[in-house]
Amino acid sequence: MSDPHIVSSFDEELKYLMRRVSEMGGIAERMVGDAVAALVASDAGSAQRIIAEDIILDDAERDINERAIVVIAKRQPMAHDLREVMGAIRIAADLERVGDMGKNIAKRVVAVQGTAQPKQLVRGLEHLSELALTQLKEVLDAYSTRSAVAANQVRQRDDEIDAMYTSLFRELLTYMMEDPRNISACTHLLFCAKNIERIGDHATNIAETIYYMATGDRLLGERPRGDKTATVMASGH
Amino acid sequence: MSDPHIVSSFDEELKYLMRRVSEMGGIAERMVGDAVAALVASDAGSAQRIIAEDIILDDAERDINERAIVVIAKRQPMAHDLREVMGAIRIAADLERVGDMGKNIAKRVVAVQGTAQPKQLVRGLEHLSELALTQLKEVLDAYSTRSAVAANQVRQRDDEIDAMYTSLFRELLTYMMEDPRNISACTHLLFCAKNIERIGDHATNIAETIYYMATGDRLLGERPRGDKTATVMASGH
Repeated sequence: MSDPHIVSSFDEELKYLMRRVSEMGGIAERMVGDAVAALVASDAGSAQRIIAEDIILDDAERDINERAIVVIAKRQPMAHDLREVMGAIRIAADLERVGDMGKNIAKRVVAVQGTAQPKQLVRGLEHLSELALTQLKEVLDAYSTRSAVAANQVRQRDDEIDAMYTSLFRELLTYMMEDPRNISACTHLLFCAKNIERIGDHATNIAETIYYMATGDRLLGERPRGDKTATVMASGH
Repeated sequence: MSDPHIVSSFDEELKYLMRRVSEMGGIAERMVGDAVAALVASDAGSAQRIIAEDIILDDAERDINERAIVVIAKRQPMAHDLREVMGAIRIAADLERVGDMGKNIAKRVVAVQGTAQPKQLVRGLEHLSELALTQLKEVLDAYSTRSAVAANQVRQRDDEIDAMYTSLFRELLTYMMEDPRNISACTHLLFCAKNIERIGDHATNIAETIYYMATGDRLLGERPRGDKTATVMASGH
């Protein structure tokens, strides 16, 4: 292990994995942002492009997995080095799923198109997605700097997304009750909101992975994650 | 590699991973079946037990991951052996998510409780879950026998779940429109149906992993997966 050539090459392999993960993060971020923008603008063309883009993340995840396994088999890394490689696999899986969420939102653009979307609900959805994208951006920054502190801050903030999602969920139910003609479109907005809330969960997962990569310890204690709407009843019912 | 002791021990490690994955499959199956039963019977006590059980699958997945990485680093398996180890990791991830779906359904028992649930919709949900559980059971059987043929059959049948989910989705929307008092409970049933549809997707993922483990090839071509409801508009709107 003291051969400088081998050491440097392992280092390059780690850098490759890290660069690929960061690339995935950028693509996933953009897909989600574009999908919400397409939903708001009823832009079916843009939605189609986002749906087609998802395969890039699938391929990137597969590449990262295959390269990581080769590295583990060839180098038999231990401790911190092994956590680096495993972390890349885990984060790639979360980012691939964030892309799926973006794709799913894009798929709903056509269903929601042409229906009267209450501005206030659309704004609520945009606001929720801004919060989720901020979380995603900050957790990707924490990945670049391997900052356990920054990762933990992201994890603590997932509460805000959950609270906003719960409030949007209630609003959507109320709106559906006021006028049954809204039900179809609002159902799709409900699933979009759920997708965005799950992006927040993936950011939390990534934060926990980074913390583990950096420290070797797991973040325990009350995990501020989870959809609180499972027990929400619409008011008056 | 001709040392019979080492060969036998690698074999035992593979068997351990396989047994753990099969155990996870059994637990995930039971969780989902119990969750749907709890939903139908409005059994909040049973729902609580299911929610608490989810941690077993989380721990099992972590154990499988850690053991698999040790095996890869120690044995540097190639070709079929490596696919076995990687397959265990992938299938464990899908089964952990199936457990999450069961947990999410269980969480909705309280929200749906006490509301008038139309028998026909509840039956639709039960029927959908039977189909998904059959898929899960058969893909776990295909895992035990490493049957690429059986795995491919499971994959082909995911269409049926998607079709039934789409029809249930439409029924739920219609029912919500008929009487706005149904909206709150039906929204939760909608998310339950979505969770069950995703269990079908996980069974499809597992089928593809088994095919790859057995043959070294990827199942390509038109993949019969995916929620078709993203473009569903309720009739009359």
